[in-house]
Amino acid sequence: MKNGITFPLGFLAQGVEANIKKQTLDLAVIFSEVPCQTAGVFTTNRVQAACVKANRELIGRKTRAIVINSGNANACTGLQGEKDNRQMMTLAAECLGIKPEEVLVASTGVIGVELPMDKVESGINKACASLSKEGGENAAAAIMTTDTFPKTAIAEFTIGGKTVRMGGMAKGSGMIHPDMATTLIFITTDAVISKECLQQALQDSANISYNMISVDGDTSTNDMALILANCQAGNVEITAVNSPEYQIFREALDRINISLAKSIARDGEGATCLIEVEVSGARQDQDARQVARTVVSSSLFKAAVFGKDANWGRIICAVGYSGIDIDPDIVDICLGRQQVARKGAGVDFDEEMAKQDLSEEEVKVQINLNQGEGRAVAWGCDLTYDYVKINAAYRT
Amino acid sequence: MKNGITFPLGFLAQGVEANIKKQTLDLAVIFSEVPCQTAGVFTTNRVQAACVKANRELIGRKTRAIVINSGNANACTGLQGEKDNRQMMTLAAECLGIKPEEVLVASTGVIGVELPMDKVESGINKACASLSKEGGENAAAAIMTTDTFPKTAIAEFTIGGKTVRMGGMAKGSGMIHPDMATTLIFITTDAVISKECLQQALQDSANISYNMISVDGDTSTNDMALILANCQAGNVEITAVNSPEYQIFREALDRINISLAKSIARDGEGATCLIEVEVSGARQDQDARQVARTVVSSSLFKAAVFGKDANWGRIICAVGYSGIDIDPDIVDICLGRQQVARKGAGVDFDEEMAKQDLSEEEVKVQINLNQGEGRAVAWGCDLTYDYVKINAAYRT
Repeated sequence: MKNGITFPLGFLAQGVEANIKKQTLDLAVIFSEVPCQTAGVFTTNRVQAACVKANRELIGRKTRAIVINSGNANACTGLQGEKDNRQMMTLAAECLGIKPEEVLVASTGVIGVELPMDKVESGINKACASLSKEGGENAAAAIMTTDTFPKTAIAEFTIGGKTVRMGGMAKGSGMIHPDMATTLIFITTDAVISKECLQQALQDSANISYNMISVDGDTSTNDMALILANCQAGNVEITAVNSPEYQIFREALDRINISLAKSIARDGEGATCLIEVEVSGARQDQDARQVARTVVSSSLFKAAVFGKDANWGRIICAVGYSGIDIDPDIVDICLGRQQVARKGAGVDFDEEMAKQDLSEEEVKVQINLNQGEGRAVAWGCDLTYDYVKINAAYRT
Repeated sequence: MKNGITFPLGFLAQGVEANIKKQTLDLAVIFSEVPCQTAGVFTTNRVQAACVKANRELIGRKTRAIVINSGNANACTGLQGEKDNRQMMTLAAECLGIKPEEVLVASTGVIGVELPMDKVESGINKACASLSKEGGENAAAAIMTTDTFPKTAIAEFTIGGKTVRMGGMAKGSGMIHPDMATTLIFITTDAVISKECLQQALQDSANISYNMISVDGDTSTNDMALILANCQAGNVEITAVNSPEYQIFREALDRINISLAKSIARDGEGATCLIEVEVSGARQDQDARQVARTVVSSSLFKAAVFGKDANWGRIICAVGYSGIDIDPDIVDICLGRQQVARKGAGVDFDEEMAKQDLSEEEVKVQINLNQGEGRAVAWGCDLTYDYVKINAAYRT
């Protein structure tokens, strides 16, 4: 993937073994040769890791680097945790010759355990000493926890004749090896864009991508998406959200974010398939979002997909308890290639074909509420024995 | 259990094989020798089975019988479903010599499939022909779906020198053999009580019992709790919710409902233990309720309990995303006999003792938010391989 977050001009990265976990890449550094506009969105959990608190302060200011560790979330670690986070900023800043306030931090892993700062320190030193374009690959691997594959995406587009690049990497909310489910997303771009436009684009794009995936409904203490724009592409600055240039930028960002979001859902812990739920005909988009998320989060429906069971009753049931004022007697449902319910009641369908469609890598559900024009898509995965296995005993 | 719902004076019941399911009791009738005050609470799912719609009309009126079938939910079955439900009322009324409007109906099972009315009819005939006190036992068995044991409870208390009796039976939201998770609860009493007091008592009692259990967060199209009071005990009528007599009645009802609720949680599909989450120190009871329910519903926490893993990070994480404005830095958590977190951070505890406590039939979690006097208790069960197995392929 052309190294993901190092694809845009002026970005370098590396991922190294810091031994926070056992014998695997577990610490990454992303570095920009020049200061970047910085935007971020963060977990809504009231319990927030030290890195989330510290990063919030830096959003809207110019930063140049991100340090990421897996294996330890540095959450519920009190004042020591805040001190350790600050120390990570200082250590990276010293190595990179920049200011601590130019360093963002992201941690993922077990909750309530203090960071092994000696290991973190040598990892930061090692990563900063070997930054490169190719290092983007190791960086994407170093942020994995229970992920089964690294998740990267890139995009290239043109604004006013200038080529602009964007790269991204993510780790899954697979959940929790060794402990807490965390979704981390890092995007880099060489676009010239104002900080206000950057923040708006990230928020809106996250709403239709990361905020539309569900693995198990738990929200982590460490979730975040960060974007750095180092303005090296030389395009005329994007300064208005209603400009055509902003639209081009936003479309590229959506492509990357939706691609990473689907990778995260597909790689949900124990998952055997990606589930896509498209809801149309809602009174408004917000209603469609809520219905789509409710269906894709239903344990019953997720288990039925795992069992290749065309159990549309569980779909309409989830639609019913989504909290949206739907009329069950006008709901239509398609599963894979076939309609399975019309006006809220079952229609004859080919069970064999349904079983085939449920055996695909991507299982599609379309729900038409027939109430209006609102529309949304959500992604998730099936619920399997392995989900339980992975989560039953990972701390001990 | 002295036959559960036939324990009060004047109630008879029976459970029979109607062959809606294969070779097992699957149809029950409860009958009162005289008309009863009737109260009920119903699913909040917007998709509602025919029986739910029909019963809503009868609440507050006097009824005398309840017909219950398992194996088919008669939900999402359109006009034919409503007609079939009406037919069940008529058939039972004819057998029992009462009016169709005196018959309540409850169905549980697969969604979207029409009832086999010939089988239902012969089942109703058979059950009505063999009503007895002892039949209460078969009735409790006939309403089971994936339940592994029948759930009954009785209470006896005194109002103004008169002995009053109450009995109850429930089926679990174990979820879904062959399909839909449904919680059905039926309570009978010979108390003399006004319909307003009866409805109020049932609603308030359901709020601290059935509304505080979670197996998997899915809400069925058929959930209901019904109570019939046939006024045979001869006590002075309970007519005011602030009277001491009402309090006595309510306490007995709470005992029965909490006992049945805990049975349902304990028997959650695939469960190996009951989890009790007590939240104290909330600003108000409502906040405590929400936090308790969020924790007991967390897939991550439930899987950790199955793995006997004293993973308090998942508890505080769920507290954090409950939607309540808690302060993570003052939260205390006890797991079993030990404190595991103080002021939002971990404390040293004996891992071996924690593992023992997590291996009990009842696992207790106490969370003190240290913000006020609000308090609530919720019940659930662990998340196991068997939950996935049971739900993966039960329709086909």
